[in-house]
Order: sequence, then structure tokens, then C-alpha cells
Amino acid sequence: MEKELKIPDATIERVALYLRPLENLLKEGAQVVSSEQLADLCNVNPAQVRKDLSFFGEFGVRGVGYEVSDLLREIKKILASDRVWRLGIFGLDDMGMALVQHKDFLKRGYRFVAAFDYDPEKIGKCLPTGLVIQPVSMIRELTRELRIEIGVITTSPSEAQKTADLIFQAGIMAVLNFSPIHLRKPECCLVQNVDFTLNLDHMAYQLKKHGQ
Amino acid sequence: MEKELKIPDATIERVALYLRPLENLLKEGAQVVSSEQLADLCNVNPAQVRKDLSFFGEFGVRGVGYEVSDLLREIKKILASDRVWRLGIFGLDDMGMALVQHKDFLKRGYRFVAAFDYDPEKIGKCLPTGLVIQPVSMIRELTRELRIEIGVITTSPSEAQKTADLIFQAGIMAVLNFSPIHLRKPECCLVQNVDFTLNLDHMAYQLKKHGQ
Repeated sequence: MEKELKIPDATIERVALYLRPLENLLKEGAQVVSSEQLADLCNVNPAQVRKDLSFFGEFGVRGVGYEVSDLLREIKKILASDRVWRLGIFGLDDMGMALVQHKDFLKRGYRFVAAFDYDPEKIGKCLPTGLVIQPVSMIRELTRELRIEIGVITTSPSEAQKTADLIFQAGIMAVLNFSPIHLRKPECCLVQNVDFTLNLDHMAYQLKKHGQ
Repeated sequence: MEKELKIPDATIERVALYLRPLENLLKEGAQVVSSEQLADLCNVNPAQVRKDLSFFGEFGVRGVGYEVSDLLREIKKILASDRVWRLGIFGLDDMGMALVQHKDFLKRGYRFVAAFDYDPEKIGKCLPTGLVIQPVSMIRELTRELRIEIGVITTSPSEAQKTADLIFQAGIMAVLNFSPIHLRKPECCLVQNVDFTLNLDHMAYQLKKHGQ
């Protein structure tokens, strides 16, 4: 444990980024990957890859590369993505529906075990995944019963803070927030914001810089 | 122009992050914001905010803060988000439908001007926004006619690379990619990948570290 705590956050973020290309390489039958190859797949530089991976033990063989399956297993263990995390989704409009059915979540170890909405018209409906939409008022009981660990907020912006408060009160410590709202949270809890328009802002800047 | 080119990419990414809280502050009637306040809203440290904003001219008044509306206008100008960018979306499954109707895009200056799909059952259908779904084979004509500047890929993974190739061939220089595929691209073109599971990986690591 002592060792893990010293890994910088930025390294963790980049290492998570290495997972997907590594999984693809394994699927394609590759046994070894070089830092140059991995760097190219992830748009970072090879020295950065080598430095990041040095936190995870001695996988590299100088002049050869890394054993793909060993590296993948170790990264997953450290990132805690070698187990299934249990998610509850809040708000079943288009975005919520798209997320709940998105195959990537389960493939990466994130399983939606509950779906909540405020709209009486939606409550009781069965999703294609088999989940039945529950009223948000059931959050405490269902969090305990289904052991929900992470809440995903896809409600309207006006309902986002109220929903976050209920999530934290129910004992869920982490929220993935798709609403364009800065959520207030207890010190001990975690919030990650997803904002696609930030990616677009970054591209727009690059396009403008290159004279589009 | 000379000056803009020197701004580091990491600064641009953080500055884009400052936009949304600044817009909220303006809406709430705030005239001045301190670096501490802005830092707190964006989860960065105040010294970082001051350093980032120093690239954008002399907005700060020592001991007081920044003029919200001046700062917002200047950031938007530099990020090129003071104008409307024209988007085409490729793949109208749940995720595509959710994005095309997402109010945030237009609010931040990104307008979907075209929607494409491969599925003959979908082609010709009218979206709630008024757009009619077009066959991907129409990409060249429509890119020219509608001046599409950025392509958004929400196709199935197996169609993502083919779609990206068509987008770049049609003269669109930038792609926002929602598929879990590493896209090959010409040197001159831009790709930004959106991957929600990376945010979850980061939270899972933090939860594990704190003993969940």
C-alpha cells in the first residue's frame, strides 16, 4: 500500500489511458510491446511511458519491451479495475439510456445495478438491460441492498445538485457527473465531471491556430 | 498571433475548464472573481490559475481579482469559442441521438448541421432538431455545402475507422471520437477521444486507495 500511495495522480490518469491499447494488443495476439509503440498508440512520448510504468515494477526488458499480459494484469490490479464496480444511474433521458446500454462500461468492469428517475411516467419501466427504473426516493434502501458504489448523474442540470446530495447521504462516495453543474460535495467524496465540449474547445483552438 | 502560439497545450485545456464557472458567475451577476475562487470552482490551485491567466493579458487587479466579463470575452476569443463551429455526427444510435439533442453543444458554440448513418432504415428520418439523417455516401457533397468543420463519430467500433477515413477524405480536419478505437489519421488532422470509463478508472483507483 505504501508504494501505491506515492504514484502521482497524473501518472494514474495516463496509465488508465494505456489500458485500452494494451487490451487491443493482447486481443491481436501481441506478446510484447515497446514503449515507443505504446506511446504512439496513446499520443504521449516514450520517455513518459517508461517513467509511468516504472511505478508498476520491473516489466520492461531493455531493448525488447514489456510483456503485454503481465503489464495489463498489473495495471488493472493497481487501478482496481480487476474487479466489477457497481453503478447506479440517475436520470434516464437519452444520455442516461445511451450510457446504461453502452457495452464499454461492463467490458471495463463497471456494471449498472440500479436506475433511478424522478419522472412518474418512467418509474417502473423496464430497460433493455433488464433493469427496472426506480424512484429516487428508494435510493437509501437500494444503495444498501444492491451495494451501489458509484453514482452517475444524467439528470437535468436543475436536478443535479439535489441528486448529488441524496447520493452522498445514501453513503455512495463517488459521482460521475454528466450535468454542466459544479457539484458541491462533502470533503470525503469524489466527483468527476464529463464535459464533451471541453474536447471540442481544445480542437477548435487547434483548428483556429492552424488557420481554419 | 505570435503570442498565442506560445501558450502551452496544458494551459489551453485548463483555461477551457475555467469558461463554464465564469459563465455561471456572470449569470449570477458577479463582476469580479478572485483566483482563489476560480481555483476552488475548477479544482486547481490559485497559483496555477494566476499563471494560466497571465498568458491572456493583464486582467488581474492585485488584491481584488479579475473582471468576469472581460476575462470571459478574452478567453473565448483566444479559444475561438466566440464563434459557431459546424459539426457533423456519424452514427445515430442512442449516444448519437443523445449528443445531437444535447443543449450544451449549441450553448457552447457547437452546432450540428448534418447527421449521417449507414443504416437504410434510419436514412431519411427527421430528428427532433429538424435534421434529416443522410447516407454517409453523401459526405463529400454535404461537407462542402454545409461547411462541416468537425466530425463526431458515434458509430459502432467496427465502422469507426472507415468513417474517420471518409471524414478526412471529405476535407474535415477534426474528429471527436466516441468509439473505443484508436483512429489512424493523416498527420495534419486532429482527433480527440472521449472515454467515460477513464473517469471511472480514476475514481475506482481513488476509492480503492481510500479503502472502499
